[in-house]
Amino acid sequence: MTQSLSSFSFKTIGVIKSPFQQKFGIPRQPGLTPEIKSSIVLEAEYSSDEIVDQLSLSSHIWILFVFSECYAKNWSPKVRPPRLGGNKKIGVFASRSPFRPNPIGMSAVKLIGTRKQRGSLIIDVLAADILDGTPVIDIKPYIPYCDKLPDASSQLAASISMLSQPIFFSSQALQVCEQLLCSGAENLRLEIEQVLRCDPRPAYQKDGQRIYGLSLYHWNIRWQIDTHRIDVLSIDPS
Amino acid sequence: MTQSLSSFSFKTIGVIKSPFQQKFGIPRQPGLTPEIKSSIVLEAEYSSDEIVDQLSLSSHIWILFVFSECYAKNWSPKVRPPRLGGNKKIGVFASRSPFRPNPIGMSAVKLIGTRKQRGSLIIDVLAADILDGTPVIDIKPYIPYCDKLPDASSQLAASISMLSQPIFFSSQALQVCEQLLCSGAENLRLEIEQVLRCDPRPAYQKDGQRIYGLSLYHWNIRWQIDTHRIDVLSIDPS
Repeated sequence: MTQSLSSFSFKTIGVIKSPFQQKFGIPRQPGLTPEIKSSIVLEAEYSSDEIVDQLSLSSHIWILFVFSECYAKNWSPKVRPPRLGGNKKIGVFASRSPFRPNPIGMSAVKLIGTRKQRGSLIIDVLAADILDGTPVIDIKPYIPYCDKLPDASSQLAASISMLSQPIFFSSQALQVCEQLLCSGAENLRLEIEQVLRCDPRPAYQKDGQRIYGLSLYHWNIRWQIDTHRIDVLSIDPS
Repeated sequence: MTQSLSSFSFKTIGVIKSPFQQKFGIPRQPGLTPEIKSSIVLEAEYSSDEIVDQLSLSSHIWILFVFSECYAKNWSPKVRPPRLGGNKKIGVFASRSPFRPNPIGMSAVKLIGTRKQRGSLIIDVLAADILDGTPVIDIKPYIPYCDKLPDASSQLAASISMLSQPIFFSSQALQVCEQLLCSGAENLRLEIEQVLRCDPRPAYQKDGQRIYGLSLYHWNIRWQIDTHRIDVLSIDPS
């Protein structure tokens, strides 16, 4: 039997590259923005092709990462999950809050593939909910027979309700999206739609007059929302 | 954006109490031994009732733990998963091997409940696959809508084949089990059956003559297996 250590040190094995430049706007769970592509750029020490050999045996992978903005910060025994309306408190271990004794996050994401770029090994994934620059500490295959629990249930967040009102883009916003699309860059229009459908607003803030800012890649996006529609007002470089 | 750190230190928040006193015999995935009960004994710092408030909103929880026997040991870019017969190599990130750059394990287990014992907060779970004494670094609710991926597939281990031959107990073995049962202790007979049905033998070792030893709680169990039957020969205190 192992004598228990009181603390452990783990190395960063890679860093997330994602369009999410700030916490606001990140979907609160993975899988909700299927068009959003992110990458894990592995550190030199872990960039051998061998280390990811047969990774594609699995359609999805787990990313274990550090909520680095919460690292070495205070945590509380109770938190207010946004999905419970932001006013109900529950124990931190009953939640997925990033403010926790050890701020480790885990997300199951769809695997696109691996590639080499300037000596670095890169793992491309879809639908991650992870901030750009986040340190990754482990990658594991998603194994359905042990991770997909048929009898699991949760009253914490039984299902996700996505916003369904129509989304309108201003001509200025559309023009930016079209330019990017034609130059072979990301389909920003679709990505903005998917992020907004997740309703990034804080649960307690439902003011239809307010203009919100959101950053994706190096773009500042200004938008407004009421019960009937969502308007993307402008897209400007940040 | 956060500047990326090259390493992180995490504290042990609790320790696993399980019947598995050695690696041999531990089911290779959680969920396979539904009768086996384990507990997370939280450290004093994390033993407030608040920290697990509403944990029972979720039927299952994730345990993040450290493969402490592999900590600060060497790892290889390629490993031989037992489920692939123990002779096929794949990349370590394509595997759930405990020998990995950061030896973190994650298991989804069924939550029984929480209780207090001599000032410690204890979380009881079923069907864990974790060695006694293992340090725990995080506990999270299993949230079906983001953890249960309907379209996930894996050729790594499509399903688990449990052994189906009949299991026979010697009278000495049965007597020990009956004494335990009547004294209100664990149902050792059922637990032994579930562990043996997972076939703890190394994949390359299928010698019908061999007598295996297995420890559960403080019992040494000697058993034998061939294609027609499994025999539990003796159960002795270790």
